[in-house]
Amino acid sequence: MQQISVITLGVEDLSRSRRFYTQGFGWTPVFKNDQIIFYQMNGVVLGTFLRQALEEDMNRPGLRGPGPCSLAHNVPDRQDVAPLMDRLIDRGGRLLRPADAPGHGGFRGYVADPDEHAWEIAWNPAWSIDAAGHVTFGL
Amino acid sequence: MQQISVITLGVEDLSRSRRFYTQGFGWTPVFKNDQIIFYQMNGVVLGTFLRQALEEDMNRPGLRGPGPCSLAHNVPDRQDVAPLMDRLIDRGGRLLRPADAPGHGGFRGYVADPDEHAWEIAWNPAWSIDAAGHVTFGL
Repeated sequence: MQQISVITLGVEDLSRSRRFYTQGFGWTPVFKNDQIIFYQMNGVVLGTFLRQALEEDMNRPGLRGPGPCSLAHNVPDRQDVAPLMDRLIDRGGRLLRPADAPGHGGFRGYVADPDEHAWEIAWNPAWSIDAAGHVTFGL
Repeated sequence: MQQISVITLGVEDLSRSRRFYTQGFGWTPVFKNDQIIFYQMNGVVLGTFLRQALEEDMNRPGLRGPGPCSLAHNVPDRQDVAPLMDRLIDRGGRLLRPADAPGHGGFRGYVADPDEHAWEIAWNPAWSIDAAGHVTFGL
């Protein structure tokens, strides 16, 4: 099955990370303990896990990062991009790229979370998003 | 909306990466050009994008990686974990952690893709996956 179950981000400070995700994005955790917080997303689960615990679970200590990867959150309208980026930055994020129009269309910018994980905030009219948040590729 | 639209992984060689994802996982691209390959997943899109192009898009050159993060692909049965890990390793992956049972239950191991992005291959009976591949958190 063409399926991703979980995206797990290593974090240094769960409270700091939670502030970014709950107050910046406005998301609500589905589970938390003293090591990990899970968010139920659109058919996939996002986890923020203490970095050292994640490294132990992966059997891969001493990761440097940030790695060459990004996550994207799409918004319904072009004018939603910049205000959300501002709110994320206000809640501990760091601006990587101000919002502008890429060559392939749409409108987007990038913000790093407090642990340097990159988020693209994008408006992409070619990609549909249904009521449950499920995203379908389009051109 | 509690929603992730895209997971984009920076890669050095699109053909090498494609072999891992199409022959290892058995996934089919929904789009490809000479810079990026997209896979339509369960309500989210996975992209493999030439690292330098991703860095330019993010305005964040010279990323070292691998970062402290992982993606998980859940399988229906405990006995599906090891054979899939073997196939991923045969198609260019690298073993990080052989499959075993973590304290929180289930069964899992980790494999890095050819660009060192970590994948957890997991059996987790507490998390439901519907026919469309949508995953729901559970305890």
